[in-house]
Amino acid sequence: MLTVDQARDWLLQRAQPVRTSETLPLLQALGRILAEPVLAGVDVPPQDNSAMDGYALRCADGSGPLPVSQRIPAGTQPQPLQAGTAARIFTGAPIPAGADAVVMQEMAVLQADGQVLFSQAVKPGQNIRRAGEDILRGATVLSAGQLLTAADLGLAASIGVATLTVYRPLRVAVFFTGDELTEPGQPLAAGHIYNSNRYWLVPELMRLGCEVTDLGIVPDSLSRTREILQDAAGLADVIMTCGGVSVGEEDHVKAAVEAEGSLDLWKIAIKPGKPLASGKVGQAGFIGLPGNPVSGFVTYQVLVKPYLQRCAGLQQDDTQPVAHYPAGFAWERPDTRREEFLRVKLVQQDGRWQLQRYPNQGSGVLTSCAWADGLVRLAPGQQVSPGDMLALIAFAD
Amino acid sequence: MLTVDQARDWLLQRAQPVRTSETLPLLQALGRILAEPVLAGVDVPPQDNSAMDGYALRCADGSGPLPVSQRIPAGTQPQPLQAGTAARIFTGAPIPAGADAVVMQEMAVLQADGQVLFSQAVKPGQNIRRAGEDILRGATVLSAGQLLTAADLGLAASIGVATLTVYRPLRVAVFFTGDELTEPGQPLAAGHIYNSNRYWLVPELMRLGCEVTDLGIVPDSLSRTREILQDAAGLADVIMTCGGVSVGEEDHVKAAVEAEGSLDLWKIAIKPGKPLASGKVGQAGFIGLPGNPVSGFVTYQVLVKPYLQRCAGLQQDDTQPVAHYPAGFAWERPDTRREEFLRVKLVQQDGRWQLQRYPNQGSGVLTSCAWADGLVRLAPGQQVSPGDMLALIAFAD
Repeated sequence: MLTVDQARDWLLQRAQPVRTSETLPLLQALGRILAEPVLAGVDVPPQDNSAMDGYALRCADGSGPLPVSQRIPAGTQPQPLQAGTAARIFTGAPIPAGADAVVMQEMAVLQADGQVLFSQAVKPGQNIRRAGEDILRGATVLSAGQLLTAADLGLAASIGVATLTVYRPLRVAVFFTGDELTEPGQPLAAGHIYNSNRYWLVPELMRLGCEVTDLGIVPDSLSRTREILQDAAGLADVIMTCGGVSVGEEDHVKAAVEAEGSLDLWKIAIKPGKPLASGKVGQAGFIGLPGNPVSGFVTYQVLVKPYLQRCAGLQQDDTQPVAHYPAGFAWERPDTRREEFLRVKLVQQDGRWQLQRYPNQGSGVLTSCAWADGLVRLAPGQQVSPGDMLALIAFAD
Repeated sequence: MLTVDQARDWLLQRAQPVRTSETLPLLQALGRILAEPVLAGVDVPPQDNSAMDGYALRCADGSGPLPVSQRIPAGTQPQPLQAGTAARIFTGAPIPAGADAVVMQEMAVLQADGQVLFSQAVKPGQNIRRAGEDILRGATVLSAGQLLTAADLGLAASIGVATLTVYRPLRVAVFFTGDELTEPGQPLAAGHIYNSNRYWLVPELMRLGCEVTDLGIVPDSLSRTREILQDAAGLADVIMTCGGVSVGEEDHVKAAVEAEGSLDLWKIAIKPGKPLASGKVGQAGFIGLPGNPVSGFVTYQVLVKPYLQRCAGLQQDDTQPVAHYPAGFAWERPDTRREEFLRVKLVQQDGRWQLQRYPNQGSGVLTSCAWADGLVRLAPGQQVSPGDMLALIAFAD
């Protein structure tokens, strides 16, 4: 059996990142992965400006009273400040040449004679935002390989960048096999089960930003499965399925992938989980998740999602921070050979957050995945006592 | 000044949740908010079935050798098991009447005479998944007011539910004011700045699942702002803008909202931040964020996002768990009157995660928001020494 880390590393090494890019307006680039770094072509802010509504003045002129020689709203260009006068100024407006401080209006009294008197000592630089204080021209503002967040797009806008070059979305084709599978909404014949894998896997891929081709349920037939694989390899970067990859006789997926390409069938020391298939069909990668929904879901989160992110062009530190919380449960009979990934939820107990585990950790129980906030990873043989500090691998919302 | 908690509570109380719902196929419901609970109409699994590929038998028949009397692939209906025989069975296939255990195939040897011999003691119930083990008929599987995740959709599918009734998306109209604002991609005139607020706010609203009407930049004119407000009130549940709500003379938004509806202008003890406007125009709510991008971004995350989620129909525990990490920085001159929200990032130092703060916490620096993993909330006057444990309010990805 492979360890979880071995399987993960092997998949990551095998990932073939998307190379094609496209240029999009900012508001279409949310959640996409940047293909080229963004450098600042300007200083931000472009010139010294006021951090407050108030009065710009020369410190040398003291606390007044001073006559008001000009008025500088945001968006205008001021005249140089005459010595011995103050300028009415508003937040974001440029500092006039000669001025070296701004006094906020709450600290200023406009006298009956039109002169302004300041109730605060004036220090040089006070309430002035300096040109380039946020970003200096030429600085790398966003890096290739990063996932674009809302704040990133705002940052790009702040330096005048209107479009970004991002990788095209990863194309993933999915299909599902098993004559016992019935689509939801249809009556359930005896011995059949509903196809739940399609309905968690496709949304997970959508949320990851993939372009999903959903080929639905394929009959348990070798020739039909081979045809589907050929079709899928022509249009997708990665082909995924659930089930059909264990050693059972009714599994045609394994034989079909071997006939159309190549396949590695792994046993991984993971619970729930264990079987995982990885291979190639034409130029496309192939991933066969276990058919059991919980096994498939956990294997996807732990092993396959990082692989797909790498394929999509994401370059990130593989070590993600995880927070630790006390266990609110005991786990006394661990698996001695496999790492276990328990489905857990954060609950508040006496004002303190602790982890609860879903009572039934059986691998048929998809309820546990919907209920959980994330996973706790236990080493083979690792017991848990209440109060033990455990790392939470949180699911994304 | 209002405290942050007072402002948040006041906004949440004022939120008017969307009442209209629509029924969607599962794969269109990701990220939507459920309007009606989902009850299980079936047991999951619907009948006892095999957890393994192997042989179903009666424990009373011991470890064999037993003749193989039938073959039960998944998706078929078995005959009752003849006493003194075993049935070849596959994962997910129904247990035949009379059988009370399954032996995995790795523990079975098929002899030359066609009989099967078991190398493992057989215990009643072994390797059988029981009907209803996952979900009992009639149980509440998903609750009204919850955000639908991928696992939730898989769970709905597993009980045969093909459509879900969700609230229609929250409609939010946004506009931006300020004659100094220039759209990215345009040359920047002296004294002007790029409109960055549009490019973080619209994506944040998109990610929240809102239907956004983006009215762009409105000239600094009272009459034009009033027209825009009238238009927006006719099509949106909530109208949002950035800037124009402080006490400066150049702000027309305040006067326009007061003329077309009602407005509360708050000073909140938050840094960055402070001014926040909340009001109504017709039936629509109005939110005026501070115009400074960092102030707007932080105020949005801390105060406005929970309000919008409530408006969208989300019913959730307001107390979200936050993880604590040691500070990797000092903060020696806290604001004495306002709570501060520092932009921080998790970094690994000697194998341990700690929080670093962005060096420039000035409110003009949008870089800090793009760089940060989240916020640290400090009470007025609260200093930080390296090693202090601080709660991280993480930004969603």
